[in-house]
Amino acid sequence: MDRRRFIGVTGAAGALLQSRSASAQTAAPPEQILPGVWKFSFGTPEKITPASTRHYPPAESGFNVLPAVSACPVAVHAAGSRRGYLLSIPLAPNEGVYGLGLQLQSFIQRGGKKRLRVNADPKMDTGDSHAPVPFYVTTAGYGVLVDTARYATFYSGGKKRKKAAGAAEPSPEQSAISPNMLPAAYRRSSFGERTEVLVEVPEAQGVDVYVFAGPSMRQAVQRYNLFSGGGALPPRWGLGMSYRVKNDYNQEEVLTLAAEFRDRKMPCDVIGLEASYLTHAYSSSFVWSKKFPEPAALTKQLAQKNFRLNLWEHAFTHPTSPIYEALLPYSGDYEVWGGIVPDFLTPEGSRIFAGYHEKEQIAIGVSGYKLDECDNSDFTGNWSFPEIASFPSGADGEQMHCLFGQRYQDALQSVFEKRQTRTYGLVRSSGALAAPYPYVLYSDLYDHKEFIRGLANTGFSGLLWTPELRNAANPEDLIRRLQSVALSPMALINAWYIKSPPWKQVERNANNADRFDPNWEELEAQCRAVMEMRMRFVPYLHAAFVRYQREGMPPYRGVVMDYHDDPQTWPVDNQFLMGESLMVAPAFAGESGRSVYLPAGDWFDFWSGRRLTGKQRIQIKPPLEQIPIFVKAGTILPLAQPTLHTDDPASWRLTVQVYGETPSAVTLYEDDGSWNPSLAEVALAWNSERRSGSLRRSGGGSGPRYEVAEWKQIG
Amino acid sequence: MDRRRFIGVTGAAGALLQSRSASAQTAAPPEQILPGVWKFSFGTPEKITPASTRHYPPAESGFNVLPAVSACPVAVHAAGSRRGYLLSIPLAPNEGVYGLGLQLQSFIQRGGKKRLRVNADPKMDTGDSHAPVPFYVTTAGYGVLVDTARYATFYSGGKKRKKAAGAAEPSPEQSAISPNMLPAAYRRSSFGERTEVLVEVPEAQGVDVYVFAGPSMRQAVQRYNLFSGGGALPPRWGLGMSYRVKNDYNQEEVLTLAAEFRDRKMPCDVIGLEASYLTHAYSSSFVWSKKFPEPAALTKQLAQKNFRLNLWEHAFTHPTSPIYEALLPYSGDYEVWGGIVPDFLTPEGSRIFAGYHEKEQIAIGVSGYKLDECDNSDFTGNWSFPEIASFPSGADGEQMHCLFGQRYQDALQSVFEKRQTRTYGLVRSSGALAAPYPYVLYSDLYDHKEFIRGLANTGFSGLLWTPELRNAANPEDLIRRLQSVALSPMALINAWYIKSPPWKQVERNANNADRFDPNWEELEAQCRAVMEMRMRFVPYLHAAFVRYQREGMPPYRGVVMDYHDDPQTWPVDNQFLMGESLMVAPAFAGESGRSVYLPAGDWFDFWSGRRLTGKQRIQIKPPLEQIPIFVKAGTILPLAQPTLHTDDPASWRLTVQVYGETPSAVTLYEDDGSWNPSLAEVALAWNSERRSGSLRRSGGGSGPRYEVAEWKQIG
Repeated sequence: MDRRRFIGVTGAAGALLQSRSASAQTAAPPEQILPGVWKFSFGTPEKITPASTRHYPPAESGFNVLPAVSACPVAVHAAGSRRGYLLSIPLAPNEGVYGLGLQLQSFIQRGGKKRLRVNADPKMDTGDSHAPVPFYVTTAGYGVLVDTARYATFYSGGKKRKKAAGAAEPSPEQSAISPNMLPAAYRRSSFGERTEVLVEVPEAQGVDVYVFAGPSMRQAVQRYNLFSGGGALPPRWGLGMSYRVKNDYNQEEVLTLAAEFRDRKMPCDVIGLEASYLTHAYSSSFVWSKKFPEPAALTKQLAQKNFRLNLWEHAFTHPTSPIYEALLPYSGDYEVWGGIVPDFLTPEGSRIFAGYHEKEQIAIGVSGYKLDECDNSDFTGNWSFPEIASFPSGADGEQMHCLFGQRYQDALQSVFEKRQTRTYGLVRSSGALAAPYPYVLYSDLYDHKEFIRGLANTGFSGLLWTPELRNAANPEDLIRRLQSVALSPMALINAWYIKSPPWKQVERNANNADRFDPNWEELEAQCRAVMEMRMRFVPYLHAAFVRYQREGMPPYRGVVMDYHDDPQTWPVDNQFLMGESLMVAPAFAGESGRSVYLPAGDWFDFWSGRRLTGKQRIQIKPPLEQIPIFVKAGTILPLAQPTLHTDDPASWRLTVQVYGETPSAVTLYEDDGSWNPSLAEVALAWNSERRSGSLRRSGGGSGPRYEVAEWKQIG
Repeated sequence: MDRRRFIGVTGAAGALLQSRSASAQTAAPPEQILPGVWKFSFGTPEKITPASTRHYPPAESGFNVLPAVSACPVAVHAAGSRRGYLLSIPLAPNEGVYGLGLQLQSFIQRGGKKRLRVNADPKMDTGDSHAPVPFYVTTAGYGVLVDTARYATFYSGGKKRKKAAGAAEPSPEQSAISPNMLPAAYRRSSFGERTEVLVEVPEAQGVDVYVFAGPSMRQAVQRYNLFSGGGALPPRWGLGMSYRVKNDYNQEEVLTLAAEFRDRKMPCDVIGLEASYLTHAYSSSFVWSKKFPEPAALTKQLAQKNFRLNLWEHAFTHPTSPIYEALLPYSGDYEVWGGIVPDFLTPEGSRIFAGYHEKEQIAIGVSGYKLDECDNSDFTGNWSFPEIASFPSGADGEQMHCLFGQRYQDALQSVFEKRQTRTYGLVRSSGALAAPYPYVLYSDLYDHKEFIRGLANTGFSGLLWTPELRNAANPEDLIRRLQSVALSPMALINAWYIKSPPWKQVERNANNADRFDPNWEELEAQCRAVMEMRMRFVPYLHAAFVRYQREGMPPYRGVVMDYHDDPQTWPVDNQFLMGESLMVAPAFAGESGRSVYLPAGDWFDFWSGRRLTGKQRIQIKPPLEQIPIFVKAGTILPLAQPTLHTDDPASWRLTVQVYGETPSAVTLYEDDGSWNPSLAEVALAWNSERRSGSLRRSGGGSGPRYEVAEWKQIG
């Protein structure tokens, strides 16, 4: 992972065509700044934007895997006014729009309006999100990034200009999808009309817009992710199971639980502590409380059992924190929960904050963080700094909200980079150009279906998301949620308000009163099987993340991203693609069955091995122990031997399943866990005639090596 | 009702202290523009604001009833930046903040943040509202109007500036109310601290701020209402019952239903038609459909039975409308539902729109309108014009949204004014300075408790609100909702989606399938009793509205407004004051009882006549047929003989109830229904020694006269 401080994208003095009248729109000629990436510059862009404050440079070598594109695929027009800057980007009939970050309540964005505001309580589909991203991608195979740290409003084709007097209504094309496939609010929008995306950037007197060519939808996203710096590659242990203990656990209780996980054979790589390990949490002191008298001993004892330790915190710094006084000049002018808000846009603020974390936590073996509440809950929770706040860096509160999640990740990333140690953590807010940061988004919301939509949606915007498991309505709900968790970027059980693992008792109060389910051992066994399934997928997932890092290919993405030529896939937000070859269609508690759309090509049921024909919608009744997974015909699928943690050498031992007649070779990567792993490539291939598989290794270091224990031909 | 076109408030060149830095705040000396009303001018205010576009002048004579105040009660500071204009207004410890328009989900505003955006789906407590008003009033007895047509953000004391290095935390006063009396989101806010209201006005380069002295809270609101032009005085018939028929009714069905109301002895003064009476509704053609072949005959036949006719519409004008071509140059640049948006800020747009309504509807006897969808549903419903729209008047979409409701009311009001005919109607959006318009707000939302909070809240902001009754969960819910409706500014049953009156069947589908409740006649009798109760209160309500018009006294208001010295009243949002002497505490279906806070002084239970001691919270179990009403000791309460409509001469016959030992005289007003009624004053007084009442009339015209049939001493 090559990393150097990087400020802004070079080039583009650009013809700054600026108009103060919203009616007189003008087009600036775009400049190609990277293969298939064009930059439009309008007016005088603000000083503080995602691109101007970024620290990762584009991952230039990654563009080599993408086809050459000679012309910018779309024109952007813009005009300024007292309101700010208004962009207009044409939208063709039957061109679907996706993205805009972690939108939990909508998927197709065409026809809707979104105001991209950082917010922790996105209970309505307004654009409020933990991680709004001013980037969209369309089924026509290009993406558009509006480089702003403002609450920009995107009207994605839903507004119609008045006809001139006497003008005839242009006849629309036939809509490629029926209105009932759209969210209720968007149904009036005709997919068949020629229209435009309007983007209003408030306050700005200019703005840069980046256009990412495809030609396919997913290649456009790849270019966006590569422009961002390439995707994050988690350490292997980050792909194991994570478990966060109850908020009030002490050091001894943590170790007891860790031992129980090993005794009971429940896989786990990471244990997380919640707020009460600190002397002061809201705001945070960052100082270990008396409950944790020997944190260095804790990390050491956990490490001996192959556990990593992850720590909760947020950035608001309590007056009792040792860094409070030093941070004071590098903080915003409003308090949050009695603490100050570090200005991570100032090098000094970042350094003071990061330095203390290094000394007291990372140096003694803390593996990573859960960065809570870096979003905002101004209406329903009434916390975080106001938009009118100002910061020493020159940012106002609105800009800071748009960048706070990324820059907070960056501040801590600087320590891991300095120590050449990989991390994988959680964050509650992120935004544009965040792909290189090894952090997974999560939420206090808890709707299982919205959580799955999150998995499909984040892939459009260079984000990762976990549908974390907390408690459950009943054992079925527990299993169904755990299955979704187990196939997500971070397989996280967040037991922060229950004393014992949820399989002992799903109901919160009973759990905390030690009233265990009479059948808890049976439920534990079912959960163990789900967690072991996760461990089997670690090599496959790791390879998908290597492609995320190198080629910008999102490891998790909506079905439409790979099949945008088929409008049937456009509204599919309850299935997602995982890696190159798998499609997951989670089952939900209380539902006896569900329908699944299989795109073109043959597919195999992962569990039964049954072959299914694509380009059809099927009805399934998945048994409780199975989360529906479909394997693309032609796949060579490596599955690890399930282990209790990723340090176990047995986790490198593979069963390789071969689907269909002429499978393509698949590549795995041997990762020794170092900062810049050599990543020997291991190609697994299948000779259909001889019905035998082969493993070919190229490059590589001294770390552990994959071996194939068994080849299995399916179907 | 004296009315002349009036543009802006005179005076105040004002010292325009303008700073472009948000940190350097400066105070401008305010100018007293009316008794107890000061104006602060900052920077260069926008051209289009509520005050600059108003058509009613302040009701100057009304200020005579209010005490003189020599000094402006609060200082306003302001500073400009690229973001717009930021105001700071100090807030003392234990100073409660109220207002900001029709907020359905919160009451005390101190501690919260509200962005005042016009929206039809206010499902979260963000400031979205059918009728946001940039005016607040505090328990310290003054009000503040920020004269802006922008989505201003009000931080009502919930944000805390960073302490200087080494500064000690100032010790707050003890909080006058406990945190659990506040909405969850505001609980962290300490009432005991010295803080500030911050108001951010986006885009503006200056802003005028008006401060209204009290000295009491309600006097501050009176000054605001008088500044607005004084409150609306509905015609007497407007205070009777209103009933809206099912959307698909035809002319014959309307007449049949009207006859049924008279036959069944169900009081009703106004019948309303919904969308389908038009040839095209979404958007509106304003042309009678074939279902109504003889609209002039319809109004005539209804009038013969003493019914008025009210018509649904919205302003978005369909291409088939006869006024479409003429309106085109006076409309915004975006369509809504395929129709154009009239620019009511242009005299031509208003005139074209109003003229057609006069000719085709008002001239044939239509009594008023229900102005639907003049708000906005940009996220959940995806309709109405975008904020980036522009209008011939120079307004952008954001400004137009802030003013659209008021200016739409004004356009139609101009016809009634011209014809010297009073009206009373419904509107779904309103805003600042709207008190003179005889329109009542309503909503598609339907939470009974939120609807009652609306009654308490609108009184702070010069608005009227009806908790309209549609269908009901069960007969109990029907009665409870109807009782609340019967004690609201407009007693409206809105049966737009049920074929028969709800007492025949509360369940929508069964109602439309003519499956009546076996006990419907019993339920009808219960509803009749509630509707007759409404008719008894008409003289009392009419007098309260006269005071609204003349003195700015809100006829409906939160309890705190009259009792702000008692912090126990501060959070009371499920009771309201009606007129000078009554307090209503509605009962809700499914709840066997409720608690009621009685402010200081003795009170009488309206139903039992039992005397209750004030300054205590009591628990009551109201029988189904009674909505809890409490009468202040010392009240002379005139009640009319219940009639089927207000034209009935018997409606002038009074039973006068006398509460307590030394009651104050009460004044009623004899209203002949004309545009400028002479309003003879009728003073009702009680001689305690002789135990006899008297009626004294002064002034007056040739209309009907009140007479007292009976005096009753209660308690």
